[in-house]
Amino acid sequence: MKLYNLDHVGIAVADLDAAITSYRERYLVEPLYRGTVVDQDVEEALIPVGGSFIQLLTPLSADSPVGRFLSRKGEGLHHIAYAVADIDEALTHLAALGVQLIDQKPRIGSRGARIAFVHPSDLGGTLMELVEPLDG
Amino acid sequence: MKLYNLDHVGIAVADLDAAITSYRERYLVEPLYRGTVVDQDVEEALIPVGGSFIQLLTPLSADSPVGRFLSRKGEGLHHIAYAVADIDEALTHLAALGVQLIDQKPRIGSRGARIAFVHPSDLGGTLMELVEPLDG
Repeated sequence: MKLYNLDHVGIAVADLDAAITSYRERYLVEPLYRGTVVDQDVEEALIPVGGSFIQLLTPLSADSPVGRFLSRKGEGLHHIAYAVADIDEALTHLAALGVQLIDQKPRIGSRGARIAFVHPSDLGGTLMELVEPLDG
Repeated sequence: MKLYNLDHVGIAVADLDAAITSYRERYLVEPLYRGTVVDQDVEEALIPVGGSFIQLLTPLSADSPVGRFLSRKGEGLHHIAYAVADIDEALTHLAALGVQLIDQKPRIGSRGARIAFVHPSDLGGTLMELVEPLDG
């Protein structure tokens, strides 16, 4: 169950192209991957930094989770995602501790990996995502 | 100037001991370091995850930046910090692009490293910290 890597930090942005341009120009980093996470109704760009990604997220509809986040809070840090070796075992462990899970079972997230979200009210107001990387 | 590592993610918490206990119990991770960042008037605990740290932050006074963040927004993701090889060169580069810097010159941050903050209004509503690691 141990968190073994900081997989990515999700940042909600209103304009994905503009954000990519700013990161490129200011910080000399570049997306490795750009695509759609159907299940979350977002377009994402993944910028590798060290062993992690900056995940820029923009909603495909106003009524998606990231769309509602943007209208409520504006652009900013949205969630933090950690890699775990076995997501089923992780969810069983957390459920046994009474942790408030958004996803009781894994679903498919960024890059086709099995993921699950833990409710931000559970720990430090932070929306957490657990990821079982495909290459992990 | 390129960002070469995701150094840490800063998370504001109201009760540092309780947060450490929750991370230990739920996610089997443990602080490597606990101390005070005098310049920011915070107590921090650094939990290594992969090549990065989760930085749990609690204010030492209500009128500090993290204290004001907590009373305004509650617990949650506070900032994201990237390692750069040369922070003086990075600040010169950003200033030349007209980027809104909180720190025009580096100051001493977590673990004694030279750091500088970039204003969240500059890019995606995200408070960014640049760190020149002591071992970098």
